[in-house]
Amino acid sequence: MKSYRKELWFELPARRDLVNITPQVVGALRESGVREGFCLVNAMHITASVFINDDEAGLHADYERWLERLAPEKPHSAYAHNRTGEDNADAHLKRTIMGREVVVAITAGQLDFGPWEQIFYFEFDGLRRKRALVKIIGE
Amino acid sequence: MKSYRKELWFELPARRDLVNITPQVVGALRESGVREGFCLVNAMHITASVFINDDEAGLHADYERWLERLAPEKPHSAYAHNRTGEDNADAHLKRTIMGREVVVAITAGQLDFGPWEQIFYFEFDGLRRKRALVKIIGE
Amino acid sequence: MKSYRKELWFELPARRDLVNITPQVVGALRESGVREGFCLVNAMHITASVFINDDEAGLHADYERWLERLAPEKPHSAYAHNRTGEDNADAHLKRTIMGREVVVAITAGQLDFGPWEQIFYFEFDGLRRKRALVKIIGE
Repeated sequence: MKSYRKELWFELPARRDLVNITPQVVGALRESGVREGFCLVNAMHITASVFINDDEAGLHADYERWLERLAPEKPHSAYAHNRTGEDNADAHLKRTIMGREVVVAITAGQLDFGPWEQIFYFEFDGLRRKRALVKIIGE
Repeated sequence: MKSYRKELWFELPARRDLVNITPQVVGALRESGVREGFCLVNAMHITASVFINDDEAGLHADYERWLERLAPEKPHSAYAHNRTGEDNADAHLKRTIMGREVVVAITAGQLDFGPWEQIFYFEFDGLRRKRALVKIIGE
Repeated sequence: MKSYRKELWFELPARRDLVNITPQVVGALRESGVREGFCLVNAMHITASVFINDDEAGLHADYERWLERLAPEKPHSAYAHNRTGEDNADAHLKRTIMGREVVVAITAGQLDFGPWEQIFYFEFDGLRRKRALVKIIGE
């Protein structure tokens, strides 16, 4: 069994933003030499997500509005977590909706994807350096 | 390490519907010959989910009502994604709540399940052919 | 390829409560002898979750309030599932938001975690014995 590990680093210039990391994951897969196996991609921070969906700007705007409706950032005082001096309780909840991780099948050396699947890093508490993990196991 | 891959195809006769795919996944596991490992089942489309819960019709009706409350289909014009000519922005959001994939342990050649766990394909934009992926790795 | 399996049992003294199971998962990893691979931790019941987030009491109180807003327990009669004689439809929905499982990378014999990642079992229908599964594969 082969295994491979890579960290992807981000410093997004807004509190909330997302970035398509499919090319970096494909690059990691190539470096791994794995032909058959599983690829795990997870946020290493608890106020960010890794998820799979469509690379369409309108949908990304819908996610922003929808997550603000389900878990609004403000008022910061609405959250017990923010009494610790943080202001990012909403980021923990938004990340919960979007998920921490994805597991992708690897077949014949490729990410075994349907036609529109793309992998995103979704930042909910940005403006600082944070990272995601790519871990690949297989043969 | 063994690996095994199978696509499951669906053409559900409604925009939204779900189907218990546990028998097909058990069949794939049998074909794989894997005794110890992991089984990934994921939607290959970004407007459908694979999830694990109870095979109980009342609960499934509750899911439908609940998802319509959290991410209503209409008005279609409420979503930026639908300006691309689509009408399925809600399907992307509903799939986000329900999740893309499940990873199930394989122990002694069986899906290592608790007493009520069943695997479902949940369609949010049906009336056309779509598919899920079963990928198994192990020994 | 090595594989390892362990059940973690719980009997939480409230309908809803959560417990940090990171030490038990680390213990299982040590027992497995796996140095490189994947660790799956999943609820074996469909009214409980395993998730990764911060071990901070304020945040945990926010989760309770937020989940009650998104999927209120009462009135029990609001849910079709509860006509079966159950009163736990809300628990199925809360578990859906929080997720069934996590997959964690194993690197150099450790859970490959970011700085604040901790694994929790989240019970939504407690006061009875229930369990989570730890399954580890790798080398």
